[in-house]
Amino acid sequence: MQSPYDIDLDRNAANYQPLSPVNFLVRAAAVYPNKTAVIHGDTSFTYAEFYTRSRRLASALAKRGIGRGDTVSIMAPNVPPLLEAHYAVPMLGAVLNALNIRLDASAIAFMLDHGEAKVILTDRMFSGVIKEALEIATNTPLVIDIDDPLDQSGELLGEMDYETFLQEGDPEFTWTPPEDEWQALSLNYTSGTTGDPKGVVYHHRGAFLNALGNTISFGLSPQTVYLWTLPMFHCNGWTYTWAVTAACGTHVCLRAVDPALIFPMIEEHKVTHMCGAPIVLTMLIHAPRETQRTFDHGPIEIATGGAAPPSAVIEGMEKMGFRVTHLYGMTESYGPSTLCAWQSDWDDLEGDARAAVMARQGVNYVTLEDQTVMDSETMQPVPADGETIGELMLRGNTVMRGYLKNPKTTNDTLSGGWLHTGDLAVMHEDGYIEIKDRAKDIIISGGENISSLEIEEVLYKHPKIMEAAVVARPDEKWGESPCAFVTPVEGETGLDEAEVTAYCRENMAHFKCPKTIIFSELPKTSTGKIQKFVLRERARGM
Amino acid sequence: MQSPYDIDLDRNAANYQPLSPVNFLVRAAAVYPNKTAVIHGDTSFTYAEFYTRSRRLASALAKRGIGRGDTVSIMAPNVPPLLEAHYAVPMLGAVLNALNIRLDASAIAFMLDHGEAKVILTDRMFSGVIKEALEIATNTPLVIDIDDPLDQSGELLGEMDYETFLQEGDPEFTWTPPEDEWQALSLNYTSGTTGDPKGVVYHHRGAFLNALGNTISFGLSPQTVYLWTLPMFHCNGWTYTWAVTAACGTHVCLRAVDPALIFPMIEEHKVTHMCGAPIVLTMLIHAPRETQRTFDHGPIEIATGGAAPPSAVIEGMEKMGFRVTHLYGMTESYGPSTLCAWQSDWDDLEGDARAAVMARQGVNYVTLEDQTVMDSETMQPVPADGETIGELMLRGNTVMRGYLKNPKTTNDTLSGGWLHTGDLAVMHEDGYIEIKDRAKDIIISGGENISSLEIEEVLYKHPKIMEAAVVARPDEKWGESPCAFVTPVEGETGLDEAEVTAYCRENMAHFKCPKTIIFSELPKTSTGKIQKFVLRERARGM
Repeated sequence: MQSPYDIDLDRNAANYQPLSPVNFLVRAAAVYPNKTAVIHGDTSFTYAEFYTRSRRLASALAKRGIGRGDTVSIMAPNVPPLLEAHYAVPMLGAVLNALNIRLDASAIAFMLDHGEAKVILTDRMFSGVIKEALEIATNTPLVIDIDDPLDQSGELLGEMDYETFLQEGDPEFTWTPPEDEWQALSLNYTSGTTGDPKGVVYHHRGAFLNALGNTISFGLSPQTVYLWTLPMFHCNGWTYTWAVTAACGTHVCLRAVDPALIFPMIEEHKVTHMCGAPIVLTMLIHAPRETQRTFDHGPIEIATGGAAPPSAVIEGMEKMGFRVTHLYGMTESYGPSTLCAWQSDWDDLEGDARAAVMARQGVNYVTLEDQTVMDSETMQPVPADGETIGELMLRGNTVMRGYLKNPKTTNDTLSGGWLHTGDLAVMHEDGYIEIKDRAKDIIISGGENISSLEIEEVLYKHPKIMEAAVVARPDEKWGESPCAFVTPVEGETGLDEAEVTAYCRENMAHFKCPKTIIFSELPKTSTGKIQKFVLRERARGM
Repeated sequence: MQSPYDIDLDRNAANYQPLSPVNFLVRAAAVYPNKTAVIHGDTSFTYAEFYTRSRRLASALAKRGIGRGDTVSIMAPNVPPLLEAHYAVPMLGAVLNALNIRLDASAIAFMLDHGEAKVILTDRMFSGVIKEALEIATNTPLVIDIDDPLDQSGELLGEMDYETFLQEGDPEFTWTPPEDEWQALSLNYTSGTTGDPKGVVYHHRGAFLNALGNTISFGLSPQTVYLWTLPMFHCNGWTYTWAVTAACGTHVCLRAVDPALIFPMIEEHKVTHMCGAPIVLTMLIHAPRETQRTFDHGPIEIATGGAAPPSAVIEGMEKMGFRVTHLYGMTESYGPSTLCAWQSDWDDLEGDARAAVMARQGVNYVTLEDQTVMDSETMQPVPADGETIGELMLRGNTVMRGYLKNPKTTNDTLSGGWLHTGDLAVMHEDGYIEIKDRAKDIIISGGENISSLEIEEVLYKHPKIMEAAVVARPDEKWGESPCAFVTPVEGETGLDEAEVTAYCRENMAHFKCPKTIIFSELPKTSTGKIQKFVLRERARGM
């Protein structure tokens, strides 16, 4: 028998609306029209202006024929046009493809072709690489230059500049919300270490929810002043491009992650929140004394992810007046989707004990259905013993739709009802997960699993070491042995192999100590992650 | 041509989950298993226990055949079983029908029949009225008694008591999330002043979103201690039954809104947040001096709605260490869906100017699509001039599915793509809405519209007046004239008609002054709203 609840209670325009992050801007412009929405150098825009500029951009794109399912690429640092594109492009049902500014021409050409970009907005700073990419690509998108007064390097490549293009658009442009919240919103290529980049597709529903998840987890409010130390091209700025607007806070743009800019901006704009990879925190800690500042409006909330913050980094940041939150996520999960939620019985922990709990990737956001650690063969959860290693899995509405034009990899990655992160983790007794390593980064020495992260954590505590990365090196006797690459703190010349080895022997089990120590700069991916595959090759060649 | 984004990027178990507020409890129990979730008298439950008890209840109901689309009614004050039912019943895809505890037997009988209740959980305090209702009703639900040690009045009516019933259930019960987030979640009858009560149907999606909207608007966090001064039967406690759990805060139960209980509980449990109709605030302000306390852990956030808080109430609450937020909503919109969001340029306002802005119902939650004020005939928005009166309309995902078995009223109420609230409002220049009156409460005197709320606002400021309500009285000369019903502050005997009249003439336009003043207690609906239709009848009869 049909339930009475199934009759005459259908969806209609009054009670159903597809979820979309574009609505955050509509609302912010209605509620706080005169509030500062975006600061960039000496320029700032109110929420009314932010919305108007976004509508102009949408309108100008529509006039060039851009509509549902069309890709709009953009190559820019954290400048207002990139933020505006996060609203204008989805207004059309089009798909935003924010390119990683550290990519080379051939990777960009691949993306322009694979993503079928109809338009590319490009900051003149990157005209060299974009010009080359456009020559390689088969595709010929419309090129619009972002001609930012704050950086006039590079040349103008395109048909016109961004501000002129905006003038073509109608400030009162009537746009149409997505018909379906599952519609594609953005395309984010992962910086894979092998093979072609994979194009991760987000939808409106997921971005709406993850933005609210960020708002709640990170405590954003209309009083929030958010400094853009995280690249907006990275998982759409971990969806903070939308979250800060949802909270009706203020976006402070930043072209380059430079402590000499960051410290004065925090002071001037009374920044309350920022995000970044641990390297950003390390840069702030190791900035010259004359650059550093202390703040009387803190503590300043800083969320970090991509790797667990070493204890030395947490302590260093706290001394400067920051409070560190550890988030975890990946491009495939809209950026952060777990956080190391604080427990009141940790309040008394200090030093290493404190860092040990904070190193955990933690628990799922309220907007993510679930997380678990599983044996990826049997798909059975590992025991919650803090020791048994399995693969970290995520599921819920903030997991990508899949990889564009890549059904096989999509199916593999989302098989068994879970997103397979590729990260090896343990589940602690309290249900908190902790990543031990990337699957390919674990070192197997004499049959023992050695976590490269664990050795790195020890190395980071050495006062003369700024950065460290440990990889497996083939070893005749043990199969593999740990090989450490170490960057000393700037100006530090007195550190040698013997000192590092002695230090390691004092601070970890003997079998875990690096057998090889190399002093070197660390190669990084375009998103700032250390490229362990490069180091592995170097280790192998020695 | 099909867009590449429409191919091979479908929903699956890894990336799609129906939104449901039940997941908040699952997550809270996983993240904070040992945290105090619910306090009731000397008893408290951790989140692990809260979840286990809810699973037991779901299991016990399932064993009695309760499943998708079945209605489970409950008649109880704010006690743990009512909170548990908010999770257990939806776990089964069943529908929770929390009954208003102030209803009479015939109204309850109507609801048990109309809602086709399969089970009723009933607190023994209400055994009298429920016994009578069950005799009137055609339907014969399973009856389970809530036998609360805190109130042993009344008799036991049912097959067994709640705690025994829980013992029948499996604490590890495996429940199934809803297949569709549009599925019915709860049934809330509106206390209509005429005709049969209407059964408002909520869905999982709307409750999930409104709970997050509350979490963000009211700043809930794991540090939140929420005192239940708002009835949970009222729009499912404005969806705070779910929101407090989403934030992983602590619920503090309360059987009766009694200042002698509330003040010490705020102090003992370090309450941070609470909600209530303005009458709750008035009760706290007018509580005997020896009952009142001041708090050193404040300010305590109190959200109010149902009517704008008069300025005297705002000031009185602030003096005691509370901060007042004004929300607006109705049963049809999951309780609050707009708030009077604070603007920084109001910071310097004081007294009447401050109360004037705070009297506004404000702007839509981030989780509600939109609000507007329209001419309900033409469905055209009124000008944003703060003067032109129209009907307040809401739209978005936190608008009800409709009224159960009442397609005509559903269609009327949701016609033209908007929820017609029946409230008469203006749109201010800044986009904030302000309710001037219920459509039927406006007084038309000599062709002039007089807002009864405006006169009441003035009356509330008189130091000897505790409550006031103004209605239209038929008038030979003017058509209608304002008639004021006034309750003096307790113990106040020196207030007479002449004093009130003189006071009104000093403080409002002459034509707005009440021509009739009656000293009386005010009749209230079961949700604490003043019953103006009763007063209108009394005014007419004089």
